[in-house]
Amino acid sequence: MPGVTSGLPTPRAVAARTVWLTGLPSAGKTTLARALAARLEGSGAAVEVLDGDELRPVLSSGLGYSRQDRDENVRRIGFVADLLSRNGVWAVAAVVSPYRGARDEVRTRHGGRFFEVWVSTPAEVCAERDVKGLYAKQTSGALTGLTGADDPYEPPLSPELVLPTHELGVDGCVDRIWSALGLDQAAAGMVGATTALSRSLR
Amino acid sequence: MPGVTSGLPTPRAVAARTVWLTGLPSAGKTTLARALAARLEGSGAAVEVLDGDELRPVLSSGLGYSRQDRDENVRRIGFVADLLSRNGVWAVAAVVSPYRGARDEVRTRHGGRFFEVWVSTPAEVCAERDVKGLYAKQTSGALTGLTGADDPYEPPLSPELVLPTHELGVDGCVDRIWSALGLDQAAAGMVGATTALSRSLR
Repeated sequence: MPGVTSGLPTPRAVAARTVWLTGLPSAGKTTLARALAARLEGSGAAVEVLDGDELRPVLSSGLGYSRQDRDENVRRIGFVADLLSRNGVWAVAAVVSPYRGARDEVRTRHGGRFFEVWVSTPAEVCAERDVKGLYAKQTSGALTGLTGADDPYEPPLSPELVLPTHELGVDGCVDRIWSALGLDQAAAGMVGATTALSRSLR
Repeated sequence: MPGVTSGLPTPRAVAARTVWLTGLPSAGKTTLARALAARLEGSGAAVEVLDGDELRPVLSSGLGYSRQDRDENVRRIGFVADLLSRNGVWAVAAVVSPYRGARDEVRTRHGGRFFEVWVSTPAEVCAERDVKGLYAKQTSGALTGLTGADDPYEPPLSPELVLPTHELGVDGCVDRIWSALGLDQAAAGMVGATTALSRSLR
């Protein structure tokens, strides 16, 4: 079980949560989500990655990129994340989710199961990475409404964790999340308590 | 544990499935879904009811009742049901889902985990029940496009189960579903195999 000291409880033994990665395009959200999910899964947890780009055509075809539509998209993904995590399945969401209000709505829906991570890679670094070529398109005028360039991004005011990916690297980031979730120090008494715990959170 | 003979495995011990209740408005889908979910939950299973009326504003605001929009709504609910059931959470969907093609898409997405129930209450009986007053509105001309009245309903050609609710009653229907799912005769050796089984179906 990579990342878990032998003898300590696995994520199956603690109540599932929704880990919500918010940040600019190319901040590294999807990469981190996949790496975290792999570590969770390797430790025996049930996990789903909810990636904003992948879910758009599935849940939100017909929605655009206005504030209203972005918020509606965030609410839908938040609804699905809540359904999963309240049933013991970890949800790792990688969604720009630029507006604080919509993220906070999702947090409220979750009760105590929401773990917000601000992937705080600076705009300049994101624009250099430009994984999907969006920053280049925005610069050339072929695209408008790019979060962090010519569209707003509201950072979380009190996220559970802030991750400057450009300083930490992927493994370092996942280590931080793991630790902040308490997965490397969960009480041994919690082993086997998955069902009772996750159900008590419904 | 109501409905389960002592000593037999609970639904926690068998791989979760999506039970998809399709049929006309007022056929009894929501009532059956809640009764089945209660029995599953009482037997220790993790369950979510996915009710078409409840999910419309959550997942499909902006969609209407054209064939295209109905099918898109069905696909979205089917996506969520698949996420749940492949992670060991029973999904009980109560959705008119009038078109065969969209239901079959959802079936395909699920692999072998899809259990389609045609709630086959005849249109005349549904119109008499008229739980939401839709049939009256359609008759008076205040509403058009009501499935089974002036909009198509395509019954499943080979559903896992057909339930004439007007002949069986709620408990009788749930008994039939329970039995058809094999929950009253699951092999004793499956107890405790939940995780491995549900994960093997991913």
